Amino acid sequence: MSIHSIKPAQLNALATDLNATFQTLQNEQLNLDITRGKPSPEQVSLSDKLDGILGNDFLSKTGEDTRNYGNLRGLQEVREIGSSILKTPETQVFAGGNSSLSLMHMVAMLQHSYGTKTAQPWQSLDTPTFICPVPGYDRHFSVCQTLNINMITVPMLATGPDMDAVEKLIQENDQIVGMWCVPRFSNPTGCTYNDATVTRIAKLGTIAKPYFRIFWDNAYAVHSLSDDAPVLSSVWDECVKYGTEDIIWQFASTSKATFAGAGVAWTASSTDNLAAFEKLLGITTIGADKVNQLRHARLLPDMAALSAHMQFHAEILKPKFDIVFTALENELSEYGSWTHTDGGYFISFDANHGLASEIIALAAQAGLKLTPAGATYPYGEDPEDRNIRIAPSFPSEEELRKAMQIFTVCVKLATIRQAIDQAS
Amino acid sequence: MSIHSIKPAQLNALATDLNATFQTLQNEQLNLDITRGKPSPEQVSLSDKLDGILGNDFLSKTGEDTRNYGNLRGLQEVREIGSSILKTPETQVFAGGNSSLSLMHMVAMLQHSYGTKTAQPWQSLDTPTFICPVPGYDRHFSVCQTLNINMITVPMLATGPDMDAVEKLIQENDQIVGMWCVPRFSNPTGCTYNDATVTRIAKLGTIAKPYFRIFWDNAYAVHSLSDDAPVLSSVWDECVKYGTEDIIWQFASTSKATFAGAGVAWTASSTDNLAAFEKLLGITTIGADKVNQLRHARLLPDMAALSAHMQFHAEILKPKFDIVFTALENELSEYGSWTHTDGGYFISFDANHGLASEIIALAAQAGLKLTPAGATYPYGEDPEDRNIRIAPSFPSEEELRKAMQIFTVCVKLATIRQAIDQAS
Repeated sequence: MSIHSIKPAQLNALATDLNATFQTLQNEQLNLDITRGKPSPEQVSLSDKLDGILGNDFLSKTGEDTRNYGNLRGLQEVREIGSSILKTPETQVFAGGNSSLSLMHMVAMLQHSYGTKTAQPWQSLDTPTFICPVPGYDRHFSVCQTLNINMITVPMLATGPDMDAVEKLIQENDQIVGMWCVPRFSNPTGCTYNDATVTRIAKLGTIAKPYFRIFWDNAYAVHSLSDDAPVLSSVWDECVKYGTEDIIWQFASTSKATFAGAGVAWTASSTDNLAAFEKLLGITTIGADKVNQLRHARLLPDMAALSAHMQFHAEILKPKFDIVFTALENELSEYGSWTHTDGGYFISFDANHGLASEIIALAAQAGLKLTPAGATYPYGEDPEDRNIRIAPSFPSEEELRKAMQIFTVCVKLATIRQAIDQAS
Repeated sequence: MSIHSIKPAQLNALATDLNATFQTLQNEQLNLDITRGKPSPEQVSLSDKLDGILGNDFLSKTGEDTRNYGNLRGLQEVREIGSSILKTPETQVFAGGNSSLSLMHMVAMLQHSYGTKTAQPWQSLDTPTFICPVPGYDRHFSVCQTLNINMITVPMLATGPDMDAVEKLIQENDQIVGMWCVPRFSNPTGCTYNDATVTRIAKLGTIAKPYFRIFWDNAYAVHSLSDDAPVLSSVWDECVKYGTEDIIWQFASTSKATFAGAGVAWTASSTDNLAAFEKLLGITTIGADKVNQLRHARLLPDMAALSAHMQFHAEILKPKFDIVFTALENELSEYGSWTHTDGGYFISFDANHGLASEIIALAAQAGLKLTPAGATYPYGEDPEDRNIRIAPSFPSEEELRKAMQIFTVCVKLATIRQAIDQAS
């Protein structure tokens, strides 16, 4: 059944039914939230033994007393885990504190205000501009806005950013200083960049200005929901192949592996870039929390341990993603489109043009909090007002079922109302 | 005996003796370091039970799950500890991550690039300038240099900064945007600002431009070595008295109370200032490590617990300070001057004019690392080349005795050589 084939009288009947269902849901006075990619209590509990794991042994494997000051690059054993996650040599990896976002902000500040060996400061340009594949991640956009960096969008495809568009922009616009990427299980579409895209991204260094930088936020590097989830190739290896190591800043964290607010984060880049970063980092801190780094090395000593740990997360998360996909498939196949994902934290739903704000407002009235309309676009402006990000991780399965019931009713109601308006 | 009364022949004999002693020390091939205010392993061990202290209870007293995201202001119970330390209402206090230096840098960046409700961004001025009482702390100066903030010095007196000089500068120079303060057991002189100085500082807000800010780095707020150590009055209460709350940014941390690299830090300021700070903070992070904050609240639930804990630190530190003072008194009363302190981490020694670099170089030859000459002055330039900061906390008592033996010999040798040069 296509909505467009329904006759006006039927539309009105449908609207009446949906209004009644909506009213019933509203009367339940629910308070549900699927806005942010927040692990559930069950998930964070998987890492409870972090507290007490050190058993009074605070020495790193190289003999450092983690309780004291020093070592801006982070513990070797923690840099090694980052190295495995990012498929990048340990020599190129820094381990930091609890926030990869802080690392991204600091790197952006470094490139913007100070520059690096091969890059003039972005602020010396007229209109430093980032390429933002959309839909994307609001916190990335906020970093750019705070530094007064302009943003231009390119479409996100199933294979990653539209590389034809990216290459064209870089060739035509010398103000392009960078691009945001969430290369595996992209936020929010869930796509994983295919090998050809990773290669083309690495090759951007051969056509871009020397100050061009990729912010490779590999937030969901090990966050797959199934064994046959798509694999991401090593962007570092590709950059080495083309001699473009200076263009890449990689990021990762354990925020969605251990404790969301109390994990460790990494950045990886070229030797010259890291030297500049270390200098700035040393102005702002005497070092990250190495005790917590050591806890993580003890809990997740290698990739085998990490993979086993992530498997437990997948067992909790997979049924939640299934609830969302089932609801979308059963209820909304005629009302919008969405992307399937085998990992990450989000599902990206596109309603009919012009309906996202309306759906989100309706959901709020029925007690379901959704990410604000436009959040997945720079400046909070979704030009077609249709993208909605669904984050199924935090609520219980029961709450999520109820949330999806509200969501699907709101999507239908908004769509039918639009159809009635258009028919009249 | 005054050096100036010694005859040239005696000077030469003294030099010969000192050279021989110096040679003997050099032959020991020592490797000692009294450069940084780093707690000793014994001191950090006082807090070993931080790891495992949560006993699987990760909920804050307000019921927050500390393992998850959120709460930029930090846990209430940790803000309460900060409130007691800073003698400032809990509503004005943020609890952060492991580094007060990071908070200072971020506040400086906030005021410099973005401004706050009552302050235009410093970067909108021609020559934003900080007042730096000297000798002072090199990491403070680095924050200014990184943000391209000019620095002007004023003398540090036994009562705190020379307030006549400070007030004059503020009245005469509209480019003055701030001042660094380490108000209790100042780094490195060890002085504690007396009540009159604290009051005059609070009153600066009545004569300064609206963008003027005090960076009140209360790093050693609870770090006294004796029960009758001087007490610091509440700068917040004074600011309230004069309606100048917007001028004050306070900072503190547990870096020298629990684990040096893995503690918690605080900042406190006016409601308007904190609102602007929270906004910027929210761009750069989703929040500090609340699990570690909770560990600290459990270890140090109130001021009584904190005071008892700091008493253990004092018992370890006091004998080390005594070793330094004894060596200085016994050996160097004719060769320089120093300030006595009842707390903090440093002793400030002034050699004869023009000798600090020479003494530090000699000490390095004999295997003793001292803070680089000039480090206690902006731009690393001690105009009289005489100040040397001694940090006695990290070495063992035995090592420290040896270090002071080297130090005193080097001071004497450099002084006698200078006297010989001047006599010839």
